[in-house]
Amino acid sequence: MSSFLDSIYSEASRKVKPSPIRDMLHVIRQPGMISFAGGMPDPEIFPIGQFKEAAGIFDREGKDVLQYGTTEGYQPLKEFLCEWTAPRMGRKPELDEMLITTGSTQVIDLLCWALLDKGDCVICEEPTFVGATLTMYNHGAEFLTVPCDKDGMKVELLPEIIDKAKKQGKKIKFVYTIVNFHNPLGCDLSVERRKKLLEIAEEHNLVILEDDPYGYVRFDGEDLPPIFSMDKSGRVVFASSFSKILAPGTRVAWCVGKRELIRKMTVFKQGVDVCTSVVAQAMVYEYCRLGYLDAFLPKIIDHYRDKRDAMEEAFKTYLPKDQVKYQTPKGGFFYWIETPNIPARDLFDKAIEKKVAFVLGEPFYPNGGGKHNFRMCFTFASPEDTKEGIKRLGEAIREFA
Amino acid sequence: MSSFLDSIYSEASRKVKPSPIRDMLHVIRQPGMISFAGGMPDPEIFPIGQFKEAAGIFDREGKDVLQYGTTEGYQPLKEFLCEWTAPRMGRKPELDEMLITTGSTQVIDLLCWALLDKGDCVICEEPTFVGATLTMYNHGAEFLTVPCDKDGMKVELLPEIIDKAKKQGKKIKFVYTIVNFHNPLGCDLSVERRKKLLEIAEEHNLVILEDDPYGYVRFDGEDLPPIFSMDKSGRVVFASSFSKILAPGTRVAWCVGKRELIRKMTVFKQGVDVCTSVVAQAMVYEYCRLGYLDAFLPKIIDHYRDKRDAMEEAFKTYLPKDQVKYQTPKGGFFYWIETPNIPARDLFDKAIEKKVAFVLGEPFYPNGGGKHNFRMCFTFASPEDTKEGIKRLGEAIREFA
Repeated sequence: MSSFLDSIYSEASRKVKPSPIRDMLHVIRQPGMISFAGGMPDPEIFPIGQFKEAAGIFDREGKDVLQYGTTEGYQPLKEFLCEWTAPRMGRKPELDEMLITTGSTQVIDLLCWALLDKGDCVICEEPTFVGATLTMYNHGAEFLTVPCDKDGMKVELLPEIIDKAKKQGKKIKFVYTIVNFHNPLGCDLSVERRKKLLEIAEEHNLVILEDDPYGYVRFDGEDLPPIFSMDKSGRVVFASSFSKILAPGTRVAWCVGKRELIRKMTVFKQGVDVCTSVVAQAMVYEYCRLGYLDAFLPKIIDHYRDKRDAMEEAFKTYLPKDQVKYQTPKGGFFYWIETPNIPARDLFDKAIEKKVAFVLGEPFYPNGGGKHNFRMCFTFASPEDTKEGIKRLGEAIREFA
Repeated sequence: MSSFLDSIYSEASRKVKPSPIRDMLHVIRQPGMISFAGGMPDPEIFPIGQFKEAAGIFDREGKDVLQYGTTEGYQPLKEFLCEWTAPRMGRKPELDEMLITTGSTQVIDLLCWALLDKGDCVICEEPTFVGATLTMYNHGAEFLTVPCDKDGMKVELLPEIIDKAKKQGKKIKFVYTIVNFHNPLGCDLSVERRKKLLEIAEEHNLVILEDDPYGYVRFDGEDLPPIFSMDKSGRVVFASSFSKILAPGTRVAWCVGKRELIRKMTVFKQGVDVCTSVVAQAMVYEYCRLGYLDAFLPKIIDHYRDKRDAMEEAFKTYLPKDQVKYQTPKGGFFYWIETPNIPARDLFDKAIEKKVAFVLGEPFYPNGGGKHNFRMCFTFASPEDTKEGIKRLGEAIREFA
């Protein structure tokens, strides 16, 4: 359908692609649909009363909280986060190494503003989080994708990939990696590979965006040190968020990195939203200050471990073993399923008929692929729905076998 | 100072300029400083108790409010706004003609994403809001600036400006105009000129971004119809915000426009922050639903009218008449001062010495100018500070005379 806008739109506008996950909402909302699609926390465990209690901060700090905030972020929240994240980060970040953002999607947007010119390359896992690559794509990114195994990105392939791209005249700006409980793969990047990745970034002068929204939601095993904690030269930007450990409706996230780069991102943030909602930041801060974050984390972890186990149990009960492959995630939100004999898109259509939804694998491959994969979120659906949904999925799969 | 980042930064990064207003914060915060710089509401009248009461929505809707929201915005808030803005907009906007944004700076960012390629032109008033042009500048905009008089943009100059730019091969995408109580000029765009501007936009196939954060804060005279209300073809995007009529710390704003364009902007918003803080949106909604917005507006208007009058009174008492020119604004937040015989930058240095701050005129001229102008915000400082601050300003001016 043509309109007067056709000749006014930008090139980005003509190419922009909606998020396949966001755009599934109308499918997910069909009556009776059981959805494993969105990477959504379980609303049943949201700490609603405690979060409401955090509104008490208006009594104390109302005038500041309702005023424009600094672009850098609400200072009490930053002070809390620097302290709270220190054990994991290997040191306490300085206040001016941290920027509070409107969701960690904004970290990606701001880093792209700071680093990417049209046609510049980003190195990422294959597959990787589609929300991240869509943001980069809007900024004109091209992608150098690196295959993964159970220990994440096959870092040993990087030198060849980088050399080849450089010979083609491409400029590589940063590596995007989801280090813990990868979205969509569910795997961890091994410590060895973290070290190796940092070495390679040093050698080729790349920035690393270490995206870690799930790191605090580990069910099994020991926490792995962030690449940030190994970094001597300040080339790692570490990003995390309150979306998975408190509530995504806050849209409060943060990143930590080299002062100079954080400052660049801050200046770009002045131009995109001036500052993150101070109301939301202050309530998140007050919630943390009252000790509720630390109290809530073990609850989340136990709850989601149970949900993961329930999903895998249902897999074992209802899915034909010879038709599906998956790896048990040690944390996070997702199973990544391979159906070697069944095209995922055909399975998806059949599943939707049976009122069960998941996210197709293809959009997670920015350079193509994933035709026999899909992502299942285990955190959102109730135990009963999970059982029933996987049962329906099993029936759908059997119709192809 | 050079760093390994120098060869990694984007072109935008090498050119980006910090907001001169945001970057004045360290000056404003000096002890004893009286600031007329930032366009900030008076925290003394923030409805803190009523806003806190709006946290009651967590009891009712906590599960939804803490979850990811739709990118389009929190539906109850959109429904409220469509209804509430209808009388002024000339009709009730449809839900899918409206997008909730993270401050109205984000409206500008998203419209630039949708329309601007590097080097494309935006038509704007001269002077105009520096925050807006910095966002556009990051997107590679060039500016066609139109001189103003007491009735706003001299629209009659537009055909020649447009023809000249087109002859130079430039592409013009949209007109940016602040229609009521212009920032920084304080003037209204006359109804005649609104009509004429729309005609010209039709003729040259331009979009109009009608930015109206101050429209509901009118002290004198009748409300003027928005250009949006005159628009038959859907080329006007109307933007407004809760920053000036409730509290900027919410970062909740909205825009209304042609469905197709709003959809484009929504898809870009998926990539910049997924959705505006649902926590903030829901509290703003609840505050409005409880009737507090309508009750607060007359109070804001009376309060700021008094503050405007107090500032003008102080001007008359303390500023040498032959050295300053200004026009009384009928609403909004600002006086725009001209000092024909004194360079504003020299006056600024002198004023800072005397512990009084304002914003220099120059950054409001994207193509240069404003060397004898500065902006004074009358809403923020207390009556006593206003009197004392203007007295100091008068002393500073007299040192040049």
